[in-house]
Amino acid sequence: MDISEETFIANLGTHIRQLREKKGLSQQALADDCDIKKNQIGRIERAEINTTVKTLIKIANALDIKPKELFDFPLK
Amino acid sequence: MDISEETFIANLGTHIRQLREKKGLSQQALADDCDIKKNQIGRIERAEINTTVKTLIKIANALDIKPKELFDFPLK
Repeated sequence: MDISEETFIANLGTHIRQLREKKGLSQQALADDCDIKKNQIGRIERAEINTTVKTLIKIANALDIKPKELFDFPLK
Repeated sequence: MDISEETFIANLGTHIRQLREKKGLSQQALADDCDIKKNQIGRIERAEINTTVKTLIKIANALDIKPKELFDFPLK
């Protein structure tokens, strides 16, 4: 069955927030590590934007995880 | 060690091309299934563009795989 883009982006945002909090990082700290704006992290976590592969790689590097782990979550 | 965005995008493009060919789909057929332009599939496969999560989900759905499988490849 096809995955809805909106559902996936919502779940991805929640997953990124959980990974960030597990690392004990604030949105500001993660944004600084990624060299992007804090507001952008908030918008990704709230599923307000359709982010790009480059930004995902920056986030994975900042969280010290493999990119594929960003997409590894149960869909709700 | 951090993954370079350019390296990841290059590997992702190759991986998507391999997954598409494994399914026996032309770029046009995959593009039609994704409701995007054929040219965009070519540009993703050649790592010429920094694609978005929505497009990746469309591609995963068209290839009948989970989104995380798109990011599951050895980096070269």
